[in-house]
Amino acid sequence: MDSLGEFGLIARVTAGRTYPDSVLLGPGDDAAVVTAADGRVVITTDMLVEGRHFRRDWSGPRDIGRKAIAQNGADIAAMGARSTAFVVALSCPADLTVAEAEDLNAGLWDEASRAGGAVVGGDVTAGDHLVVSVTAVGDLAGASPIRRDGARPGDVLAVSGPTGSSAAGYALFVAEVEDHPDLLAAHRVPQPDYDAGPAAARAGATAMCDVSDGLLADAAHLAVASGVVLAVESARLPVPPALREAATELGADVLDWVLGGGEDHVLLATFPADTALPSGWTVVGSVMEGGEKNGAEGAGSVTVDGSEWTGVRGWTSF
Amino acid sequence: MDSLGEFGLIARVTAGRTYPDSVLLGPGDDAAVVTAADGRVVITTDMLVEGRHFRRDWSGPRDIGRKAIAQNGADIAAMGARSTAFVVALSCPADLTVAEAEDLNAGLWDEASRAGGAVVGGDVTAGDHLVVSVTAVGDLAGASPIRRDGARPGDVLAVSGPTGSSAAGYALFVAEVEDHPDLLAAHRVPQPDYDAGPAAARAGATAMCDVSDGLLADAAHLAVASGVVLAVESARLPVPPALREAATELGADVLDWVLGGGEDHVLLATFPADTALPSGWTVVGSVMEGGEKNGAEGAGSVTVDGSEWTGVRGWTSF
Repeated sequence: MDSLGEFGLIARVTAGRTYPDSVLLGPGDDAAVVTAADGRVVITTDMLVEGRHFRRDWSGPRDIGRKAIAQNGADIAAMGARSTAFVVALSCPADLTVAEAEDLNAGLWDEASRAGGAVVGGDVTAGDHLVVSVTAVGDLAGASPIRRDGARPGDVLAVSGPTGSSAAGYALFVAEVEDHPDLLAAHRVPQPDYDAGPAAARAGATAMCDVSDGLLADAAHLAVASGVVLAVESARLPVPPALREAATELGADVLDWVLGGGEDHVLLATFPADTALPSGWTVVGSVMEGGEKNGAEGAGSVTVDGSEWTGVRGWTSF
Repeated sequence: MDSLGEFGLIARVTAGRTYPDSVLLGPGDDAAVVTAADGRVVITTDMLVEGRHFRRDWSGPRDIGRKAIAQNGADIAAMGARSTAFVVALSCPADLTVAEAEDLNAGLWDEASRAGGAVVGGDVTAGDHLVVSVTAVGDLAGASPIRRDGARPGDVLAVSGPTGSSAAGYALFVAEVEDHPDLLAAHRVPQPDYDAGPAAARAGATAMCDVSDGLLADAAHLAVASGVVLAVESARLPVPPALREAATELGADVLDWVLGGGEDHVLLATFPADTALPSGWTVVGSVMEGGEKNGAEGAGSVTVDGSEWTGVRGWTSF
């Protein structure tokens, strides 16, 4: 890595790349310039730290690059926006080879493209551990951002896809059981549906957030922000067959993964009860009266099958 | 730190903060929303790693926060833009106290405000070392971005302020000489003139960049991008009296600091020869024919007092 130098590295990672029309000035200057067509920009940042958010013996550099982009792109989608551009700051340990750095970079670019944007700038520095810090910007295309505080009693609660696959993959890695490649892959790299957020916004979503900490944990954030009770019905939760099989094999409770597992980066949203939900979305519960909007901690809460969820099951599993 | 939790920390660091009108949605949701009044957004990122970019025994947490914002704000200014917002990702070691985290945060907010923006979002994670990764976005207010590749033969070369103070402060720290508090402070926290960039753009700057690596190193980047030779006249370089005094005390060559020292984050720009330079800017040389625009490495070069600068003096001092 060091042998290339910063400018050599920039030349190497950007060689042959093409940019969408939204990129007015790409990498290589002090800053990049990106269109913000409706006069606003949505912005979020997330950092991945080796040993905390990934293990290099479980995840290849390409996976790590994709994951770093995906979790930021999912946050942009959770506002109802589309990602337009990403910047990436890397701290690279001395044992990261040039080939690994190129794989990491390929993962960043691939996922940025999948999210609808491009990598427009970055910073590379030496460090003891691999740290990948990504900032995403996005475009609301004239729509209002979908916040966490808009859920209203009577709304339905819905998810954009199944949760628990990343947690199941983690459990399989820990148990050294490798017969569910899709679940292992789901732990390495989440696969957000980047269209699900803007589609939900168009359908009239009243509140939305990304499921990064776990379905119940993120539902609680939304419940507190909106001052409501979110009533989850466990029978309505989408559970892929592979998840049930893996739970049986490991003697785990599949609901622990579905309700408590984080990092799947599906979206959780509320919609008026009569809404025709966009493709991929599944109703998993409803919104009830309760709590005070943006109230103190404890205001707003989540129930599962009618019982208040008071335990920490799953919340702090990982 | 851990005892607060992420949401407790967000509440704590944002309590009582006010936001400029450009912040449409501040911290607390999946992403923030900021105005981009002219339909474009300028974006840059820079990461500070403990032990590489700062030492916690030399720089307090407030200094580190200010420095992290300042170097990003200077990159925005170097495009001729004004910073509107910053997002911050932090990796915090276990020994960082809550009081230190609050000081760091205060530094981030103070400098963001000085740069004309606000901190609108962030991410906090545990890590073995303190890593501060900042992304800045900015507004060109309808102007064209000032790139590195626009310098033309016949232009003058100018700096927005003196260079070398950070390098002198570093040398004083290493020598454990503490009688130049301003130079020590300059090493801890650069003080960019954020207005200098937009002012240069209005005055007609043809090329501009931030001096982060050192005057000659950054001049070389500009020379290569523009395909020109930049002729620096050492007698015209602004040298504060304290810098000369410190050089004498340490037996150092003041030009090593002025030409080679990085991290002052002043701006370097070229202007048509007949330009009335904005306040604070000083002509330090001129632009000559030479090299190929955006040519291979080696195209474009820098001379000092008529001699080609072939050495690495200063370039890799730090």
